[in-house]
Amino acid sequence: MKVKITETILRDAHQSLLATRMRTRSMLPIIEELDEVGYYSLEMWGGATFDSCIRYLNEDPWERLRELKNHMDNTYAQMLLRGQNLVGYRHYSDDVVEKFVTKAYENGIDIFRIFDAVNDIRNMETSITVAKGLGAHVQGTISYTTSPVHTVEKYVDFANELAAMDCDSICIKDMAGLLTPHEAKELVSSLKKEVGLPVDLHCHCTSGMAPMTYMAACDAGVDILDTALSPFAWGTSQPPTESVVAALQGTPYDTGLDLGQLAEVSRYFKDIKSKYSGVINPISEQIDTNVLLYQIPGGMLSNLVSQLKEQNALDRYDDVLEEMPKVRAELGYPPLVTPTSQIVGSQAVLNVLMGERYKVIPKEVKDYVRGLYGRSPSPISDDIITMIIGEEDPIDVRPADLLEPEYDKRKKEAEEMGLVKKEEDILTYILYPSIAPKFLLGEAKEEKLAPAKQTASPPLPQVSIPTR
Amino acid sequence: MKVKITETILRDAHQSLLATRMRTRSMLPIIEELDEVGYYSLEMWGGATFDSCIRYLNEDPWERLRELKNHMDNTYAQMLLRGQNLVGYRHYSDDVVEKFVTKAYENGIDIFRIFDAVNDIRNMETSITVAKGLGAHVQGTISYTTSPVHTVEKYVDFANELAAMDCDSICIKDMAGLLTPHEAKELVSSLKKEVGLPVDLHCHCTSGMAPMTYMAACDAGVDILDTALSPFAWGTSQPPTESVVAALQGTPYDTGLDLGQLAEVSRYFKDIKSKYSGVINPISEQIDTNVLLYQIPGGMLSNLVSQLKEQNALDRYDDVLEEMPKVRAELGYPPLVTPTSQIVGSQAVLNVLMGERYKVIPKEVKDYVRGLYGRSPSPISDDIITMIIGEEDPIDVRPADLLEPEYDKRKKEAEEMGLVKKEEDILTYILYPSIAPKFLLGEAKEEKLAPAKQTASPPLPQVSIPTR
Ligand SMILES: [Co+2]
Ligand SMILES: [Co+2]
Repeated sequence: MKVKITETILRDAHQSLLATRMRTRSMLPIIEELDEVGYYSLEMWGGATFDSCIRYLNEDPWERLRELKNHMDNTYAQMLLRGQNLVGYRHYSDDVVEKFVTKAYENGIDIFRIFDAVNDIRNMETSITVAKGLGAHVQGTISYTTSPVHTVEKYVDFANELAAMDCDSICIKDMAGLLTPHEAKELVSSLKKEVGLPVDLHCHCTSGMAPMTYMAACDAGVDILDTALSPFAWGTSQPPTESVVAALQGTPYDTGLDLGQLAEVSRYFKDIKSKYSGVINPISEQIDTNVLLYQIPGGMLSNLVSQLKEQNALDRYDDVLEEMPKVRAELGYPPLVTPTSQIVGSQAVLNVLMGERYKVIPKEVKDYVRGLYGRSPSPISDDIITMIIGEEDPIDVRPADLLEPEYDKRKKEAEEMGLVKKEEDILTYILYPSIAPKFLLGEAKEEKLAPAKQTASPPLPQVSIPTR
Repeated sequence: MKVKITETILRDAHQSLLATRMRTRSMLPIIEELDEVGYYSLEMWGGATFDSCIRYLNEDPWERLRELKNHMDNTYAQMLLRGQNLVGYRHYSDDVVEKFVTKAYENGIDIFRIFDAVNDIRNMETSITVAKGLGAHVQGTISYTTSPVHTVEKYVDFANELAAMDCDSICIKDMAGLLTPHEAKELVSSLKKEVGLPVDLHCHCTSGMAPMTYMAACDAGVDILDTALSPFAWGTSQPPTESVVAALQGTPYDTGLDLGQLAEVSRYFKDIKSKYSGVINPISEQIDTNVLLYQIPGGMLSNLVSQLKEQNALDRYDDVLEEMPKVRAELGYPPLVTPTSQIVGSQAVLNVLMGERYKVIPKEVKDYVRGLYGRSPSPISDDIITMIIGEEDPIDVRPADLLEPEYDKRKKEAEEMGLVKKEEDILTYILYPSIAPKFLLGEAKEEKLAPAKQTASPPLPQVSIPTR
């Protein structure tokens, strides 16, 4: 069965390798050619791109969406949505979620990939329902991780819940690159058999396994693979589009994409890459074998190193590495992804540095235990609950049920501040109330692009072509 | 069936990424730990390492072999041997081949991987026979390429010839990264079924397909995979050892290697990599999609660019790209690897720049058509033969049959020049008569290592761990 390709170069690839810094003006010259490749979809909005646009690039994310969409006639426009978190870092009230999803759809999004960090479907239901109501394609997403409580069965159950909410396809989101070929085979074939929806596999190369995992997923009947054009592939990004396309040629999974055409768009992005070389984090281009050892994503480890350095406690690195899985277990094995990676990470650091476990407990950890981030994958023991929030009872409702509607109130605020030229500006303000005003008032400045790295013209291979 | 791993970090990996510049002193501190990993073999000698040692490093390659071997108790020591070319660039007489193989064996080589650029077994028979006679393991090697005459059937026939010469295993050497998963499956399973020897798969990542090809090869029953520890993996090198090991865990192909142990040796080579960062060719670290389009290996293309630049003819690049497959077809589809890549490449360049095909013909092309490099994969047409060497008849004997014994003559020369402290020095002199004297007289200097690149301490990911 033909495999479809979702190209991530306009979103995840540069979010992974380039700190989400690609400008719209770097995308527009190539968007029509991208649109003609024959991709199933182009992931080109959401995730951290919204934040980055207003925080660093002095760009209106809504404009980007419209401008790109203007040139997309053949390919679905796809975004990544953090469920009730939208493209921000906290839960928003349902009226904001509804408004945001509606505006994203109206401005051009065809496929909403919707996920929640702890796979709590209650954090996804409003956005799913709204998107479905608008007629969009909803890709219900599994945040993949490994733990004693994360079994194929559990994932299938979760996917069935997503199917029951009318999701059109299922995405396995392997943000840390943990999915092995073996597990992919089991998971994909179980999903295909027991859920029946098309399955998309989204892996990061962090551990180096992703290309092999993709092969195994093909054998198990995967429908869509996420790839990035080679200049922005590998490392913490996706496997290279051209390589996956070439590897599947002549198999039943042949994508049908043309390597010549891909080479042309790829050449464009090669130039873009050198333009942005000053903001490439070399660490993000490397294989991170620590993921394989500790199941801890790469970004989290670099973060840990910097935190310990600041505290002059780099010698406690190994202790913290050992503490992390303990804290994660005690907190019910959340997948390690924003914000749960920070929640687990900060508690582990404090447990080690304070010399006493849970002596100091950050507010985020308390909120997590209170249930404000959603249901933990496995229940937290009463002992831990008591230790962290005392006699308080964790909530047993959907976290967003506790939130008052806020759209109208914020709208008024924004209008009073003179920020609103179009409805979307209100959403921008609600999502980023501290940085949006400056941006919306036209007072923000585009971050200066770090100068391209002067990697001296590389020495050519020392094989000479003999001439007469 | 458990898959075994051949680690290439001491030979092919740094030959591919580091212009073969790794010093013995960078290998010795880690050799014992490498030996304890549980690899099937360590490729650690041959290929371009011999040349590099005396040309750039002022190191005795025989010393390197002995010193490394001293610390290897558990792992086979493996070398790459270019058949009748040994570790040089021309055919040597049989007495030299016999002496060289014997000395390599005596100094510690357990496994001889023996190949010929055009898969002419006559160029391999002396070295195979000698190595077998000594009791070594001989890995008969297929130089893999694609063309209308390179079929699975032909490769199997060739492998059967190798088996008939008592080779102990078969290696598929995919030097350009052309082997797709699909073809690997067919080739490996046919070899397993019809030859019956253990099969080793050696792929370069150049096109990005290798990890996927490895997965497919496992399904087809491959016995050994060649990998490189992650700091020297990807690009034009092999797939990363750790990733392959992790990906096969929990499958029937589990390598049994320990990721923790691999992480430790890998950490060592991470430091080595930064030490040598000044000689890394960034091009060799990238995916080269041109291989996928033109079946032309990456190194050959960079070479072409530099040649055309010198001639002020970069505008003819596309013409030469088109000309190359024509010349290759006319010359009987040789695999594009040293020296045939240069033979085809230089003729293609001349055909385009001279404005008339085959107006100028380099001596190497004539010698190739004369049969001096061996039998071309498919016969060259009489027209082409006449055009290139006129009325002359191509040879129909084994090329080395035309060579006089030369060991004793060169030995005398070397002794008269005062170059010989040990028998191996005579071989060094015979292989590299122009550069060996200076080296053997102790007048050579180690090339200064280019200063490590000051990639400014990378910015850390912008995710903060919240603290109280
Ligand atoms: Co992602
Ligand atoms: Co090789």
